[in-house]
Amino acid sequence: MTELFTVHTPPAAWARFTAHFHPQVRSEWIATADALDRVLAASLVSPQDLPDFPRATVDGYAVAAADTYGATPGLPAFLAVVGEAPMGVAATLAIGPGEAVLVHTGGMMPPGADAVVMVENTQRVDDANIEVFGAVAEGQHVIQVGEDIRGGQAILAPGHHLRPQDIGGLLALGITEIAVAVPPVVGIVSTGDEVVAPDQPVHPGQVRDINSYTLTALATRAGARAIRYGIVPDDRAALAAAAARAVQECDIVVFSAGSSVSYRDMTADIIEGLGKPGVLVHGVSVKPGKPTILAVCDGKAIFGLPGNPVSAMVIFDLFITPTICALLGAAASPQARVTGRLARNLASDTGREDYIQVRLETRDGELWAVPVLGKSNLIYTLVNAEGTIKIPLDSNGVRAGESVTVVMH
Amino acid sequence: MTELFTVHTPPAAWARFTAHFHPQVRSEWIATADALDRVLAASLVSPQDLPDFPRATVDGYAVAAADTYGATPGLPAFLAVVGEAPMGVAATLAIGPGEAVLVHTGGMMPPGADAVVMVENTQRVDDANIEVFGAVAEGQHVIQVGEDIRGGQAILAPGHHLRPQDIGGLLALGITEIAVAVPPVVGIVSTGDEVVAPDQPVHPGQVRDINSYTLTALATRAGARAIRYGIVPDDRAALAAAAARAVQECDIVVFSAGSSVSYRDMTADIIEGLGKPGVLVHGVSVKPGKPTILAVCDGKAIFGLPGNPVSAMVIFDLFITPTICALLGAAASPQARVTGRLARNLASDTGREDYIQVRLETRDGELWAVPVLGKSNLIYTLVNAEGTIKIPLDSNGVRAGESVTVVMH
Repeated sequence: MTELFTVHTPPAAWARFTAHFHPQVRSEWIATADALDRVLAASLVSPQDLPDFPRATVDGYAVAAADTYGATPGLPAFLAVVGEAPMGVAATLAIGPGEAVLVHTGGMMPPGADAVVMVENTQRVDDANIEVFGAVAEGQHVIQVGEDIRGGQAILAPGHHLRPQDIGGLLALGITEIAVAVPPVVGIVSTGDEVVAPDQPVHPGQVRDINSYTLTALATRAGARAIRYGIVPDDRAALAAAAARAVQECDIVVFSAGSSVSYRDMTADIIEGLGKPGVLVHGVSVKPGKPTILAVCDGKAIFGLPGNPVSAMVIFDLFITPTICALLGAAASPQARVTGRLARNLASDTGREDYIQVRLETRDGELWAVPVLGKSNLIYTLVNAEGTIKIPLDSNGVRAGESVTVVMH
Repeated sequence: MTELFTVHTPPAAWARFTAHFHPQVRSEWIATADALDRVLAASLVSPQDLPDFPRATVDGYAVAAADTYGATPGLPAFLAVVGEAPMGVAATLAIGPGEAVLVHTGGMMPPGADAVVMVENTQRVDDANIEVFGAVAEGQHVIQVGEDIRGGQAILAPGHHLRPQDIGGLLALGITEIAVAVPPVVGIVSTGDEVVAPDQPVHPGQVRDINSYTLTALATRAGARAIRYGIVPDDRAALAAAAARAVQECDIVVFSAGSSVSYRDMTADIIEGLGKPGVLVHGVSVKPGKPTILAVCDGKAIFGLPGNPVSAMVIFDLFITPTICALLGAAASPQARVTGRLARNLASDTGREDYIQVRLETRDGELWAVPVLGKSNLIYTLVNAEGTIKIPLDSNGVRAGESVTVVMH
């Protein structure tokens, strides 16, 4: 076990973890209309040309483009209007030379027509004839068969987060059901004799549970489903029983243990008993968040998080969100980020990643990132922050005035 | 009505609209634990000091700091250990001069103690005494009463989007229920004789409904609840009936009408009949999306969107998302955005806002925004895009190589 107490850098810790964690994406079929923000589990290919008939893109007259060549306002082309193409049914009325058919935006092009003259560029001469005041090119104001997408063309790849327009694009092709990734299940096990549920009375010496709920929300936001296993007393048998149940029912188990050394050691010990290979990393060179455990037990991903709320959130973003993405078969969603200038010097040690909570302030039209100086064991450090900046491993700090990237909460 | 056909710039159109639209935020009480991404409807003030007892932040010995002054590894301070403070109950065992009590991280400080010596900086001499190898300052390794937040202090303001840490912060104070904004209801009325539901067979001349579903997803993403009123035939009486029902049941009604001039005129006409003041803007200088209607009818927000999917999405982002935010009492959520270099020249007209769909490409480590050149009536223009860039009103274009901000989809 001694080797396990070596502190690893975040990339080294992640590499040790992923060498043993081999996520399997599970999929389920759901209605495309309900698939917003879900992750596609299989590649999709267009079953048809879209559109599958040529469509007018303006209101006007469907014509043979050649019949309009040379037309000008002074010397218009004369065409005979042989009818109107109704919306929503096949256009069967064909045009011959010198003929035109009235069409509406989105309507099917009549046989023999290859362009549309906008109604604004025409004038009725009488009931049966129009003047055309300008030439149109072949294909002008027409969407061709397959111009949106062709049958057999790849649409979207597995791992894609479905957006509003993707839902529209799939339904346009009649793809009303799709295979998406089943949300991974994250079990959250809280311990601490001093911790009580938020709806219970608290007595001196007791505090309400914070992390179970913050972690549930973080898991939900990352696309997982969270199960809370309640607050387990600081008792080896009780914690081991909760751990065994959670690892059975979940893909990922997160221990939000008390922060004391003895609790942490007990947690590591219990994780070791959950399966092979067991604890892979115990201690990561990140501030806050050093006393973190990464483990893989019989294929399940297991994390021991520091009890401090700020540390817990930093470590969740760093390791658990990517694990949820891996189980969804997805790349991480892009997070909102802004660039600002740092409001004060921040020191760091090389060989350690620092994550600093900041709020944003606009001064003379410029955006400044102002570090929130609360301790990492205070939840209001996070509540008062709008985002996080990272000081990378190889840096010994950032000076006031330098440009920083703020990842928004 | 003639004045209505003046095309307005997007800011002028929004100003006309907001001069008549006076949103009322409705609120409801929900469990704080379920409030992720909801919008707070009332300001919250802390009901108590947090913590409400002083807590140790490390494992060690609670002491009077003065008893450790001058202690060094060579000349340690000797203290008598008078007991252990148990977790989760009031610390009643007080310390006197020269005494210490064993404490655990998060535990209550014993009366008389004002600092904690980390266990690493001590050594047991015998069952009852320890050596302390360094001085601690008053307050060191202690969270003071109210240090996280004080009773009476403002926590969060109305309009705040609740994040994971906010849920934790509220539950830490025992605030288990909160008032949040009721999601505004957006009614979506689709028309077009050529449009059929995506799960129905399509015949030549017919197309499947796209916009109802894309708009539903956009509304959901913005924090609203969408109701689809189906596909209404191109018939004045049918459209007027659907409109009357939607305006009764919803806060916002969106007409996704056919794109032809006659449909648009009929839509504008029906909107005029829904209440006062009626149509405020008919035509906005934005590309794509010019044939847009903004109206307020007896307090309800009404929009007529272009039928083209790209235009519909651009206009939704421009006007309907801010209207939903106004009904939630919220500022717009920050959207993910990235900066890249534009891959080709884009021309625009001054006096018009242009929104260009782009995909992102990394070339030699640099991010490039590559315009997706599909027409605005093709849904796959949006599916193939990763974000949008805006060319502002006063610009006549952007040159290849210039830096642009991409708002991610």
